[in-house]
Amino acid sequence: MTQVIVLNGGSSSGKSGLARCLQAVLPEPWLAFGVDTLIQAMPASMRASEAGIEFAPDGEVVVGAAFRALEEAWIEGITAMARAGARVVVDEVFLGGAASQQRWQKALGGLQVLWVGVRCESAVAAGCEVARGDRLTGMAEAQAELVHQGVSYDLEVDTTHTEALECARIIAAQVH
Amino acid sequence: MTQVIVLNGGSSSGKSGLARCLQAVLPEPWLAFGVDTLIQAMPASMRASEAGIEFAPDGEVVVGAAFRALEEAWIEGITAMARAGARVVVDEVFLGGAASQQRWQKALGGLQVLWVGVRCESAVAAGCEVARGDRLTGMAEAQAELVHQGVSYDLEVDTTHTEALECARIIAAQVH
Amino acid sequence: MTQVIVLNGGSSSGKSGLARCLQAVLPEPWLAFGVDTLIQAMPASMRASEAGIEFAPDGEVVVGAAFRALEEAWIEGITAMARAGARVVVDEVFLGGAASQQRWQKALGGLQVLWVGVRCESAVAAGCEVARGDRLTGMAEAQAELVHQGVSYDLEVDTTHTEALECARIIAAQVH
Amino acid sequence: MTQVIVLNGGSSSGKSGLARCLQAVLPEPWLAFGVDTLIQAMPASMRASEAGIEFAPDGEVVVGAAFRALEEAWIEGITAMARAGARVVVDEVFLGGAASQQRWQKALGGLQVLWVGVRCESAVAAGCEVARGDRLTGMAEAQAELVHQGVSYDLEVDTTHTEALECARIIAAQVH
Repeated sequence: MTQVIVLNGGSSSGKSGLARCLQAVLPEPWLAFGVDTLIQAMPASMRASEAGIEFAPDGEVVVGAAFRALEEAWIEGITAMARAGARVVVDEVFLGGAASQQRWQKALGGLQVLWVGVRCESAVAAGCEVARGDRLTGMAEAQAELVHQGVSYDLEVDTTHTEALECARIIAAQVH
Repeated sequence: MTQVIVLNGGSSSGKSGLARCLQAVLPEPWLAFGVDTLIQAMPASMRASEAGIEFAPDGEVVVGAAFRALEEAWIEGITAMARAGARVVVDEVFLGGAASQQRWQKALGGLQVLWVGVRCESAVAAGCEVARGDRLTGMAEAQAELVHQGVSYDLEVDTTHTEALECARIIAAQVH
Repeated sequence: MTQVIVLNGGSSSGKSGLARCLQAVLPEPWLAFGVDTLIQAMPASMRASEAGIEFAPDGEVVVGAAFRALEEAWIEGITAMARAGARVVVDEVFLGGAASQQRWQKALGGLQVLWVGVRCESAVAAGCEVARGDRLTGMAEAQAELVHQGVSYDLEVDTTHTEALECARIIAAQVH
Repeated sequence: MTQVIVLNGGSSSGKSGLARCLQAVLPEPWLAFGVDTLIQAMPASMRASEAGIEFAPDGEVVVGAAFRALEEAWIEGITAMARAGARVVVDEVFLGGAASQQRWQKALGGLQVLWVGVRCESAVAAGCEVARGDRLTGMAEAQAELVHQGVSYDLEVDTTHTEALECARIIAAQVH
């Protein structure tokens, strides 16, 4: 039985909308968490510091040691929720590519996981960034390719020309 | 010189993202207001009352007399901002079709206005509603055709298969 | 008949909560707008530029020429709403003290206005800033005294030791 | 070493502001999660259903079996984060009083926990509800006493007359 769905894609590739659609089309209740949930849970001071997470004007994201330590605990926590019986959609941005996936794989070992790559053409993702009115732009473009490097998937979807709800149906068909 | 751009379309047709994109592609600074700005400005008690605005479980929206009175003043206010020299994008849902347009036309008389119809296939708009995780669904479908009845436009865009940023460029080309 | 209530106070002095409470205790429906409504309506690019509005790390706020021009039009618009019959609560931060008040007075001329000063001890306001988890801190302290310089009021309230709802009742008693 | 701080109090008693202040005054980085984080993570359909969570017009909150099952997994997950080394502030509403506390105690067994009761006079909490402009009111009053029944604390704070930042300093002094 699939217990965890990991959606990995760059900023503005439509992952969180996709997660909401998955919750709507899957027959059982699934929890949805993302890296944004973790960032929100951190002290405000971590959101703009060298030890925490920094968003450079050019769209680069730099993550420090204190952030990494809390993230490790976060991954353990999400895994424990799944082991306790919850179904969980995780919406992630693998800034470290394959290394990021390995951190999750190590924790999730033994659980049934569906790994999903969420692609979106960099120009379209950049447009979504503008449409949301974000002050910081550039992340969509900086991350579009980066986050997929060396990552292996059970399934990939492309939100460039396919609506979130349709992508969700494609993914749901692979959930056991 | 175009002073006001009115975007009219159903719920979840992508108007507010389009408005943000217009602000990004137009060379001058434009203000963007929507019917949501007005609803936010009203007392909480108006958001669930017969005199105010009610959102029925099937997606129907019913507007009462007190809401209408404040809306009239709101339209006068937005018009006054344009007369005072501001460029304004208005993001609207013409629940009354042609009658709604006439209310704006009467107030805006004499100003250069670009009327834009924002279409989105009802199934796709309904999908966006799901992707946003709204508790109330059905508005997208209920409004998709309704809001365009009897309304005349300078220009129409369709967000079903065209990205917001591209639609914004098409509209911006008609702004003088 | 009082048509406009202007609440002026520094950042984190509790003005927006006070405006919501006023809407709840006043028998007629009042619209509530604030300088935040205006900032939200501006292009994202104006929120971090010399021509627009800049938030310095020490809490200072610098406003440029393009911001000022849009603000003038905004003031005209709010005034027009009141002239068209709406009752309006305006939640403001008079960064320019007396000069800011004069801009509003000039536009509102002839309308019945209740001018309310909203005080909050700078240490308590700074605490509210922390409690909200704002990334930028310092505004509360920088503005606590500044915004009241040379401003004349019909009424002053102090949110340091008085709850918002109680302050709202005190103000409502002066509304005709 | 204190690993977990559990803040328990009724709706609008100021717990989330208090959690933000704790993050600001404690020297180490703490994660802050609340029951709102869990509700946000659930499918939209759970937020208005008998199996999920229902908010009655009189302020009563009814929680169903599917909600309980996900909540159990959530508690396991938060506990696992603490066991993995993270410091965590939990902002909770013990609708079941002592029974709710026991669910957490069972999971957290062995970890150093600081149990904090957050009191707020029911009239003041109800005022905060109004000031936030919530559409649903009544929860503050319904929960003010209910959530503390049979619960035992290491420490209690009262936000009625004490600012969040000051309450946070009192709590922080008990953190080892």
